Amino acid sequence: MENFYFYSPTAFAFGKDTENEAGALVKKFGGTKVLIHYGGSVVRSGLLDRVKASLEKEGIPFKELGGVKPNPRSGLVYEGIDLCRKENIDFILAVGGGSTIDSSKAIAAGVLYDGDFWDFYEGKIVEKALPIGTVLTIAAAGSEGSPDSVITKEEGMLKRGASGDAIRPKFSILNPALTQTLPPYQSAAGITDIMAHLYERYLTNSKEVEVTDRLIEALLLTMKHEGPRVIENPDNYEARANIMWAGMMAHNNSCGVGRSQDWNSHTIEHELSALYDCAHGAGLAVTMPAVFRYVYKHDVTRFAKVAVRVWGCEMDYENPERTALEGIDALENFLYSIGMPGNLEDLGGDADDIPKLVNTLCRTSGRNGSISGFITLNEEDCTNIYKLMI
Amino acid sequence: MENFYFYSPTAFAFGKDTENEAGALVKKFGGTKVLIHYGGSVVRSGLLDRVKASLEKEGIPFKELGGVKPNPRSGLVYEGIDLCRKENIDFILAVGGGSTIDSSKAIAAGVLYDGDFWDFYEGKIVEKALPIGTVLTIAAAGSEGSPDSVITKEEGMLKRGASGDAIRPKFSILNPALTQTLPPYQSAAGITDIMAHLYERYLTNSKEVEVTDRLIEALLLTMKHEGPRVIENPDNYEARANIMWAGMMAHNNSCGVGRSQDWNSHTIEHELSALYDCAHGAGLAVTMPAVFRYVYKHDVTRFAKVAVRVWGCEMDYENPERTALEGIDALENFLYSIGMPGNLEDLGGDADDIPKLVNTLCRTSGRNGSISGFITLNEEDCTNIYKLMI
Repeated sequence: MENFYFYSPTAFAFGKDTENEAGALVKKFGGTKVLIHYGGSVVRSGLLDRVKASLEKEGIPFKELGGVKPNPRSGLVYEGIDLCRKENIDFILAVGGGSTIDSSKAIAAGVLYDGDFWDFYEGKIVEKALPIGTVLTIAAAGSEGSPDSVITKEEGMLKRGASGDAIRPKFSILNPALTQTLPPYQSAAGITDIMAHLYERYLTNSKEVEVTDRLIEALLLTMKHEGPRVIENPDNYEARANIMWAGMMAHNNSCGVGRSQDWNSHTIEHELSALYDCAHGAGLAVTMPAVFRYVYKHDVTRFAKVAVRVWGCEMDYENPERTALEGIDALENFLYSIGMPGNLEDLGGDADDIPKLVNTLCRTSGRNGSISGFITLNEEDCTNIYKLMI
Repeated sequence: MENFYFYSPTAFAFGKDTENEAGALVKKFGGTKVLIHYGGSVVRSGLLDRVKASLEKEGIPFKELGGVKPNPRSGLVYEGIDLCRKENIDFILAVGGGSTIDSSKAIAAGVLYDGDFWDFYEGKIVEKALPIGTVLTIAAAGSEGSPDSVITKEEGMLKRGASGDAIRPKFSILNPALTQTLPPYQSAAGITDIMAHLYERYLTNSKEVEVTDRLIEALLLTMKHEGPRVIENPDNYEARANIMWAGMMAHNNSCGVGRSQDWNSHTIEHELSALYDCAHGAGLAVTMPAVFRYVYKHDVTRFAKVAVRVWGCEMDYENPERTALEGIDALENFLYSIGMPGNLEDLGGDADDIPKLVNTLCRTSGRNGSISGFITLNEEDCTNIYKLMI
């Protein structure tokens, strides 16, 4: 195991009706003037009104900025930064999913920064930010407990990530009941994203990491068990609850410490959701099997281990490659069974896009012709991986 | 899953040589005058000198209070409280194991409290305390990441626990190399304590808790794999590292949220270590199999599940009780294999002590003839359980 530093100070209020605690939590964490940032269905579901009522109950004034879309854009971030400065906002409350939380994190970092907030998405660590709270409406991104944010810049459609403990939420409200109204496709995309966060950590070059291997496997087993139950019956509160905690644990990094991680699947996928504006999870469902089939020979034993421990494959000691591939097939079949797409065409793309995808992937944001993770992938590798998605 | 609130803001510096960061971390978390609290072998191992050097490097003055013994006593806590007040200490640095950390937590709570600190050990929640940091020397108690502390009061030899987010450490330094010099018996007692923290959480009456079930099983599987490797080769850094992170994760409660928990084994054991001054883990090795054989019929399926998923037993669908009991046998055999005691006599006790044990267990600290957890146990139940330890 490698040396590490781990710090996850977010407070979690989990369970039914916890959105009504938003005001009290903002107060507890020192907010006196709030920007409520949101998007999607939180207005018509009545959630926004409940959150506002809880702020009013505590006598906390607020402004609103709606309009967050999936794959959140830098334009709205600039707007939010201006609004916060003009209104002397000192706390940002994100009401929504990963896109809303990530947009809030970008605003929180930008308000206290003299330069262009995009610098953080080019690699600068966020060291100061306004405090953030979240009311989560989908189990997926893990942004509710993570120091990460992903934003898309309209110019060149660059989708990039920033990070820093300063943008870890002070609190996150996780009410599984809020996710019961999600359409099956969105639920499945969330499930896929959570599983990708686990696989990205599982694919490591670090040795002797049994405790984090076991924790990742535990969360994958949970998703395997609870995912189909949610697709079959979206109202299943208990399955939603198990998935919601798994989603947080998958990405607060307590199961990823002390080991190198991959993240090539995320990096490769970001080009897909940036170009096609598809759900990130849907893009990952197409990306992961392609990447894994391309890289599994780098560590057959590791792929065979997850196949046996998570997917219940039988270990073929004569031919462990067979077991490794069976595990990848099992993952792909699982994702397909919950309604995820299987290829580039399903996402709205085709083979002609590959040169453009590879160019943006490998030749922007200071990248020098390759991306790194479990293994380093050059432009030829990335081209081959996109071809496996056809 | 039940509603819950989870907050674990401790920062962890994990890995080789991390004790040299103690001074910088005290500074980061606002300490300007430190009490170093310690016991055991930290003087002769040279660890204390390294910690002092790191404080001196940051220009942070300190006082010392050594003398912590296993099953830490209230007498030293009172001494520490007086010393902190006299010297205007504003940060307590615990250098040692669970006993030292728990003693530090008691001092930290007592300094800011007008009454007798023991009130917290009679059930009052700790709401204010001096900040604490820890340099951990044994993977066992999990106190490095928990809001809990256990202290023994000399008068009546009462061993009782206190709790509160205020006594969660601000930071904990976890260097697995510091545990390589532990005698095998102490290592095994630590392993047993960690496994007990997992079983206490596993035994729940809450339904639909797959994610936390799986996380607990993951940590039990880690202990099953790494425990024997440490006993066989105490110098095994990697096995030590996996156990150390598992020990923290077992008790910071991320795997125990949203479910009722047991803690009867701990409560029953505390009488043993209070009376015989044995290692808490050794007492638990004797206690757990006895308790589990007494209560397993309350939920045979749960005991069968851990038997299958952790101990590799085959599920007997005709007779699940057999599977459940096989799992308890497997746990007992495992603990015996790593050198733990098997009965009351091994701990220095005998059957004649049982009435006294039961009386202190069920008739002190406001207890009214029974203790509660997975099931409620009255005096007769507790007597029968202690008899199973003969």
